[in-house]
Amino acid sequence: MNNKTLTFDEVYSLAYDTLHSYNCNQKHAEAVARTIVLAEQNGSHSHGLFRLPGYVATLKSLKVKGAANPTTKALTPCIVQVNGDNCFAPYALEASREQFIEATKTCGIAALSLTKVHHFSSLWIEIEALTQHNLCAMAFTAYMPSVAPAGSSKPFFGTNPMAFGWPRKDKPPMIFDQATATMARGDVMIAARDGKTLPLGVGVDANGNDTTDPNEILNGGCLLPFGGYKGSNIGLMIELLVGPLLGERASVEAAKLDNKDGGPPQGGELIIAIDPTKFGSAEDPFAHAERLFSELLSHDGVHLPGMRRYKHRNDSANSTLSIPEERYQQLINL
Amino acid sequence: MNNKTLTFDEVYSLAYDTLHSYNCNQKHAEAVARTIVLAEQNGSHSHGLFRLPGYVATLKSLKVKGAANPTTKALTPCIVQVNGDNCFAPYALEASREQFIEATKTCGIAALSLTKVHHFSSLWIEIEALTQHNLCAMAFTAYMPSVAPAGSSKPFFGTNPMAFGWPRKDKPPMIFDQATATMARGDVMIAARDGKTLPLGVGVDANGNDTTDPNEILNGGCLLPFGGYKGSNIGLMIELLVGPLLGERASVEAAKLDNKDGGPPQGGELIIAIDPTKFGSAEDPFAHAERLFSELLSHDGVHLPGMRRYKHRNDSANSTLSIPEERYQQLINL
Repeated sequence: MNNKTLTFDEVYSLAYDTLHSYNCNQKHAEAVARTIVLAEQNGSHSHGLFRLPGYVATLKSLKVKGAANPTTKALTPCIVQVNGDNCFAPYALEASREQFIEATKTCGIAALSLTKVHHFSSLWIEIEALTQHNLCAMAFTAYMPSVAPAGSSKPFFGTNPMAFGWPRKDKPPMIFDQATATMARGDVMIAARDGKTLPLGVGVDANGNDTTDPNEILNGGCLLPFGGYKGSNIGLMIELLVGPLLGERASVEAAKLDNKDGGPPQGGELIIAIDPTKFGSAEDPFAHAERLFSELLSHDGVHLPGMRRYKHRNDSANSTLSIPEERYQQLINL
Repeated sequence: MNNKTLTFDEVYSLAYDTLHSYNCNQKHAEAVARTIVLAEQNGSHSHGLFRLPGYVATLKSLKVKGAANPTTKALTPCIVQVNGDNCFAPYALEASREQFIEATKTCGIAALSLTKVHHFSSLWIEIEALTQHNLCAMAFTAYMPSVAPAGSSKPFFGTNPMAFGWPRKDKPPMIFDQATATMARGDVMIAARDGKTLPLGVGVDANGNDTTDPNEILNGGCLLPFGGYKGSNIGLMIELLVGPLLGERASVEAAKLDNKDGGPPQGGELIIAIDPTKFGSAEDPFAHAERLFSELLSHDGVHLPGMRRYKHRNDSANSTLSIPEERYQQLINL
C-alpha cells in the first residue's frame, strides 16, 4: 500500500478547506484545523484527520452551525460561561480563553462552562493552552453512551475523558488526558480500522461477554470503565459535572437528542483552572513541583504523563505525516 | 471470643475521653470523636475506633498539638486557607466550614486549602457536610508513600483518596470516597489484623512480586494504583494539588519529615466546592441529576456510590457497635 506524505501545512489546508467547503466559516474552520494539526503533530492520530469525516457529517446535517456565533459571559467573577450556539468546541475555547485566564488569575480558581458545543478533539489541547499561562487546570467532557457502569454490561457513560495539567518552566507541561473507559473509543475505532485485536478488559460484546474484537465492542457491545467501580465513579462524576451542573446533556441525553449523523453530539465541557501562585505557598509552587517530579523520575520505569506526545512532536522523523494513499483519497473526496 | 457492645454515645465518650486524657482540648477532641462515631455508624470501621491508637500516638509524641489554634483567612474571595497549627483535620474543617460555604455560594466555585493539619479520617465526612448545603464538592489528600507509580514497584504516592459528592433532595447525597490505591491502606491493615488474604492486584511484596498477603504488602512491599497508569496519574495529580499547590508536603516529603510515631503526618487537603445553582442551568440542576440517577439505576446490577454506607447507618441492627472484648480492652488501656 502506497503512502502519501503531508507537511503539517498541508494537513492544515486539507482540514481547513474541507470544513470550509461545507460552510464552516473561517474562524471555526481555522480553530478546528489547528486542533487537527496539533493532534497529528503529537501522535494523537485518533483525534487528527481521522475525525474529519465526523466533523463534515455534522456540518452536512446542519447539526453543527458552520457560522455559529458563540457568546461568552461571566456568571460570577469566577464562572465564565460560553453558549456555543452549536459550534465545534475549539473556537468557543479560543474565544473565551482570555477572559477565563483573567478570571483565574484574579480569583485564584475559576470555572469555564462550555455549553451548546460539539467536542470532538483532545482535552489536552485546551489544558496545554492554560498551562502556558502558568495555570493548573482540569477538564471534563462527556459524549454518547459507550461505557458500562460498574455492575452492568450495557452502555450508560460516555468515554468521558478527564484531563489535568501542571505547568513546568522551560519544559512541556505535565498533562494527562485519559478516558474513563479502559481504552478511548477513538483508539478502539482505530484498532477496528486496522484489523487489530484488543486486550481483555477493554470491552464486552452485545451479550455482555468479554471480547478482544474491536468490532464486537463497537457494534452492539460496549466499553468497560478503567479500574472497575472506581473508574465507573469517575465516569458518573463527569456526567454530573458536564450535564446537570452546566445545564447541558449527559451522555444518555445527548444520544437521545442526537440526529445520528455520526459526528459529535451537542454537549458541555467543564474546565476548572487554578493559579498556583494564589494559594499562599511560602515556596514557589512550580519549583516545589519540580523537586517532586525529579524524585518521581528517579524511580526506574516511571515517566510523566504526556511524555510520549512530546517525544513524538519533537522527533524530526515526525515533521511530516504519512498516511495510506487510500485514506488520503477518502479525505480529499470529502 | 467475647464481644463488647457499645452505644454510639459510648463510642464517642471512649474516643473523647482517650484524646482528652492526652491533652487534646475540648474542641479538637469533640471534632475527632464525631468523625470516629460517624465512621463507625457508616460501617467505615477502618476510620473509626481503629484509628484511635494512631491519634493517641501523635498526641503523645507532641507531633499534633492538642491545643492547636487553627486560623482561617480568605486569600481571595474564593480561596479560603486554614493554617491548622498542627491540629487534627476535623476541627480545622469544622471551624472553616461556614466561611467556605459562604465563599462558594457567593462565587459559585471556591477552594478550601487546609495546611498544617493531620488528616486521619474519611473524606466523605467533609463532603457530606457540604452537600447538606446543596453544594457539589471534591476533596483530595495525600499521606505517606505506600503506592507505586505505574511502571515501578516502589512506593511514592500516598493512598491519596479523592472524594466527590452531589447533593440529593430528601435522599442521602451521592458520594464516592476512593483511594488511588486498588485498596485503601486502612483496609489492608484491617485484613492483616484479621488474618485475611487479599485479591491479586492490590499490592506487591518487598521484591516487587504480586502477593495476596496483607502483611507482605505492609512490611516492605507496597500497594498498586487502581486501573494501572490511569489511577497512577490521578495519584500524581493529588500529590500536586495537596503538596506544591497548597505549599504543603507531598507524600514523600511528609514521610521524610515525619517523626515516625505511627500516626498521621503533617499534610494538606484541598476541597473544591461548587454551587450548582450558579452555573446558569435553565433546569434545576438537582432535578436534572435525579433523572440521570433514575436512568442509571434502571440498569441491572448498578448502584450509586455510598449506598453501602447509608444502608449500614440506617440498619437498626447497627444501632450499636460490637467489637471484640480484647480490642475494647486495648482501647480503654490507651
